[in-house]
Amino acid sequence: MTEPDIMAGLPAGVPGALAEHLASLPLVDNHVHGYTTAAMSRADFELALNEGSLDPVPAFMTQFDSQLGFALRRWCPVRLGLPAHTEADEYWRHRSALPLDEVAGAMLSGAGVERWIVDTGFASDQTASPTELARVSGTPSSEILRLEFLAERLLASGSTATSFADDFGNALRARGDAVVGFKTIAAYRTGFDIDWSRPGAAQLEAAVSAWIESGRRRLDDPVIISFIVHAAADLRMPVQFHVGFGDRDMDLHRSDPLLLLGLLRQPSMAGTPIVLLHCYPYHREAGYLAQAFDDVYFDVGLALHFVGSQSVQLVRESLELAPFAKILYSSDAYALPELHLLGSVLWRRAMAEALGGWVAAGEWSLPDAIRVAGMIGNGNSRRVYGV
Amino acid sequence: MTEPDIMAGLPAGVPGALAEHLASLPLVDNHVHGYTTAAMSRADFELALNEGSLDPVPAFMTQFDSQLGFALRRWCPVRLGLPAHTEADEYWRHRSALPLDEVAGAMLSGAGVERWIVDTGFASDQTASPTELARVSGTPSSEILRLEFLAERLLASGSTATSFADDFGNALRARGDAVVGFKTIAAYRTGFDIDWSRPGAAQLEAAVSAWIESGRRRLDDPVIISFIVHAAADLRMPVQFHVGFGDRDMDLHRSDPLLLLGLLRQPSMAGTPIVLLHCYPYHREAGYLAQAFDDVYFDVGLALHFVGSQSVQLVRESLELAPFAKILYSSDAYALPELHLLGSVLWRRAMAEALGGWVAAGEWSLPDAIRVAGMIGNGNSRRVYGV
Amino acid sequence: MTEPDIMAGLPAGVPGALAEHLASLPLVDNHVHGYTTAAMSRADFELALNEGSLDPVPAFMTQFDSQLGFALRRWCPVRLGLPAHTEADEYWRHRSALPLDEVAGAMLSGAGVERWIVDTGFASDQTASPTELARVSGTPSSEILRLEFLAERLLASGSTATSFADDFGNALRARGDAVVGFKTIAAYRTGFDIDWSRPGAAQLEAAVSAWIESGRRRLDDPVIISFIVHAAADLRMPVQFHVGFGDRDMDLHRSDPLLLLGLLRQPSMAGTPIVLLHCYPYHREAGYLAQAFDDVYFDVGLALHFVGSQSVQLVRESLELAPFAKILYSSDAYALPELHLLGSVLWRRAMAEALGGWVAAGEWSLPDAIRVAGMIGNGNSRRVYGV
Repeated sequence: MTEPDIMAGLPAGVPGALAEHLASLPLVDNHVHGYTTAAMSRADFELALNEGSLDPVPAFMTQFDSQLGFALRRWCPVRLGLPAHTEADEYWRHRSALPLDEVAGAMLSGAGVERWIVDTGFASDQTASPTELARVSGTPSSEILRLEFLAERLLASGSTATSFADDFGNALRARGDAVVGFKTIAAYRTGFDIDWSRPGAAQLEAAVSAWIESGRRRLDDPVIISFIVHAAADLRMPVQFHVGFGDRDMDLHRSDPLLLLGLLRQPSMAGTPIVLLHCYPYHREAGYLAQAFDDVYFDVGLALHFVGSQSVQLVRESLELAPFAKILYSSDAYALPELHLLGSVLWRRAMAEALGGWVAAGEWSLPDAIRVAGMIGNGNSRRVYGV
Repeated sequence: MTEPDIMAGLPAGVPGALAEHLASLPLVDNHVHGYTTAAMSRADFELALNEGSLDPVPAFMTQFDSQLGFALRRWCPVRLGLPAHTEADEYWRHRSALPLDEVAGAMLSGAGVERWIVDTGFASDQTASPTELARVSGTPSSEILRLEFLAERLLASGSTATSFADDFGNALRARGDAVVGFKTIAAYRTGFDIDWSRPGAAQLEAAVSAWIESGRRRLDDPVIISFIVHAAADLRMPVQFHVGFGDRDMDLHRSDPLLLLGLLRQPSMAGTPIVLLHCYPYHREAGYLAQAFDDVYFDVGLALHFVGSQSVQLVRESLELAPFAKILYSSDAYALPELHLLGSVLWRRAMAEALGGWVAAGEWSLPDAIRVAGMIGNGNSRRVYGV
Repeated sequence: MTEPDIMAGLPAGVPGALAEHLASLPLVDNHVHGYTTAAMSRADFELALNEGSLDPVPAFMTQFDSQLGFALRRWCPVRLGLPAHTEADEYWRHRSALPLDEVAGAMLSGAGVERWIVDTGFASDQTASPTELARVSGTPSSEILRLEFLAERLLASGSTATSFADDFGNALRARGDAVVGFKTIAAYRTGFDIDWSRPGAAQLEAAVSAWIESGRRRLDDPVIISFIVHAAADLRMPVQFHVGFGDRDMDLHRSDPLLLLGLLRQPSMAGTPIVLLHCYPYHREAGYLAQAFDDVYFDVGLALHFVGSQSVQLVRESLELAPFAKILYSSDAYALPELHLLGSVLWRRAMAEALGGWVAAGEWSLPDAIRVAGMIGNGNSRRVYGV
């Protein structure tokens, strides 16, 4: 078997027309990274199956024994001509003997994506660029600019306390034409429980001055973080926020998106699409914000592949309070091209099972279900990012 | 089709006797508002489908594309002689051409409610009164008194720092005979993370004095809020708390009901039924409190209709830690008579699917399931409110 | 019927081989208490069905009307020769006429446990000892030492501000050979939002001195609590943490395990297994920590029997982010031998339904499902506790 039927095994009640629609729907992956282009050992590969940890996988276990590992063994071997549920060792042996381009091509083309929207702000020298993603997959790509990364580069290259505000605004505008949106990792740097009011000029100058004097490189000053978010929002292009599930350096509970209420309520934010990424385990809270604010969107991103067969419940929970025009698809795949595929496959199956069940119960009509699948799969992102 | 079979499409395993019981069970709707009596535009109607937002629905979307919108299109058109899943435009055209009394009568009578317990504390001049609700539905109504509203009226009409404590107590007792309970919206005014100890006389006097001097009308002083809650609790009538899901003016995370522990543990609260309303996404926490305190009750209120086909999962999650004698039904319908119907229909279906599944698995007996449906649907509220 | 088929009523898709494996799998119950050996009234029995409350069950209800009560009536009567779903009065009449040893033997032997790991730190004079548990069940037992209990005993018997650090370390080492791990109830004493850095000698001495002078017996000083946790962790034996669901004396929200991040990140913790117990409603957060830290494990403990038929959803939610090598089984049974049985039965059924559904959907292979059941049921605990 070289081509899986990705709708195999769904409950009997799922309407065929919905399953077929979801199996072939072109997706906009509104937040994704490149896969690692450097050589990887088996240990590197296993570590890439763990988002939270920073340590090697301990000897008593394998990271393949997880929802993500099982989903990978279910869906990825068949893209390489191996049977579903191939054992980890066998999969690794086969996969690591292939050229990376071949693996990446098989996985990325299998994702059925019409556009990759790529965050290039992390480890960009070791990961495939948007251009490379486009090449191996035959799918065009767009780019997202990470705000903290831009600010750090400006400060490292001579921006001063008095020039920083202008320098940052100019750099944003200069880069704005080349990207389709911005991203902030405030969740990692300060948490969301900061004062989100727009800093005054003097306040910002003092903060930048103090930060430069401190000699630090990692930008974690709340005044500067608030400034760069407001500056980006002024351009009315989408601003993505990392929310929830990430590595253990982050205080997860301080990334509850409800802590952004003080920012979202500010009139100056109106008109700027705010995209809350991942959100687990705060995806219900994200759905609330997407109802409460015209400009708030969200996705469940990498949680889809990390929870594997639990993605059905995750997708259902993401379909509660938010209007359907405010929910997006992303894989947030990183490091392994397998993850670019898995986000897509698991989302398609979970949507088919969730929506299909509601159609079978007579609660949704079939045309509505097909339409909503399209909105979340691509329509909303096309509108938000202009792609 | 003018009369829906509200149990259509449930899973095969749901016992017929349980479905029939739930289809016709008379409900006590323990927290509900009037529907809007003023003329509504299509835009007003759409906005009323959104609890969180305060802005018009943006042009790029319709609020009908949501779980609530789909549930409305599934269950409400059939009450007006239209097919299930009627398109939004067609529904609006038909519905808006009918007299409001006819629409309200069709929806409210379809809810199968034996008593409306009505919160009249919000926009009462633009919404149907308890008497009007009773008239159009043929169902008697009772009233709930909103504490902050009473306090604000007293202060606006000459109550002073020295007289307020007595004035409030007298007014409560004077109104107490006409109502079946009280309600606090402390969640909106202060959040629950305040000092809930009973204010001393001097402390209260100082707070009232400062508040009068401030010239504000909206009561948000934590000392005064704590006082009015304690004063109401002293009467041993039920006190309802808005908890969780509401509009974006509220800090949702500061309405986690666990933040009420400091209040609930006070010996002077014993004997006063405390009803936690709505609670989403903190309904599991509410269920915990309903187990931990003899006098705590809760419902999932408006979350039922807002999450639409996800109400099954919501109801299941509300049936975890709480003893079944501590769970109530409410619709928390507001503005649209459609919501008075939807709370009822979705609750009946969700209960049938949840309890029916457990009976089918042999985990619950059928008589127990029927009995628990009755406790939550009406028995517990009859006992708590004496109706 | 005297022997139930504990897999009766599962969905049709659950593979027989998985159900059979789970029906007979020997379990390590990694956190359990003794049942009460003193005479119990019906009122005592009902109160033991409520974890959160400290008051008698009110007259208007019975605690049997709960998920736990229904699960008990489903699974326990059949162990005593009565039909499933026997009414509460009838069950109590029959059960209370039997010798406790007979009831306990029937329940504990039905749990299919290969080892009890017993927390003897609470009410140990009124509950069955590890030896008694072993005797009535025919299953060996091991012991867990409660840290706060040990510290309190030392301080009550003459340990001083200057000797406490050494006294505690010596006592730990002296007891360490006889136990397989330690437990902290910091959740009850201080909450997790304390400074978890290791106290210096002078800081600890000052804290102990102040505490001795205060004349208190209940240890709730955050410096001393932090010290005893660090001291136990130094021995590299497992340290269990009470997390989440407990009685109302605890600030539940201050036991969110994410508040332990400051402790878990400390390099000196590496190599010490940390077991997060119960965790409800923060089990998703616990799963995150189990992914993020090599040494973090968790179970859902007493939540299994308290949520009864909702244990399927609970188990599914516990199988999201955590690698399968990091999830354990426990009953956390206390007071009633019925609970020793129910944890086991509900876990077996929930695992069969959850994993069986994923196998039926083709997402997991059957051998993987059988293997993971074994890891969680006994393999992981055998490794962590060396039993």
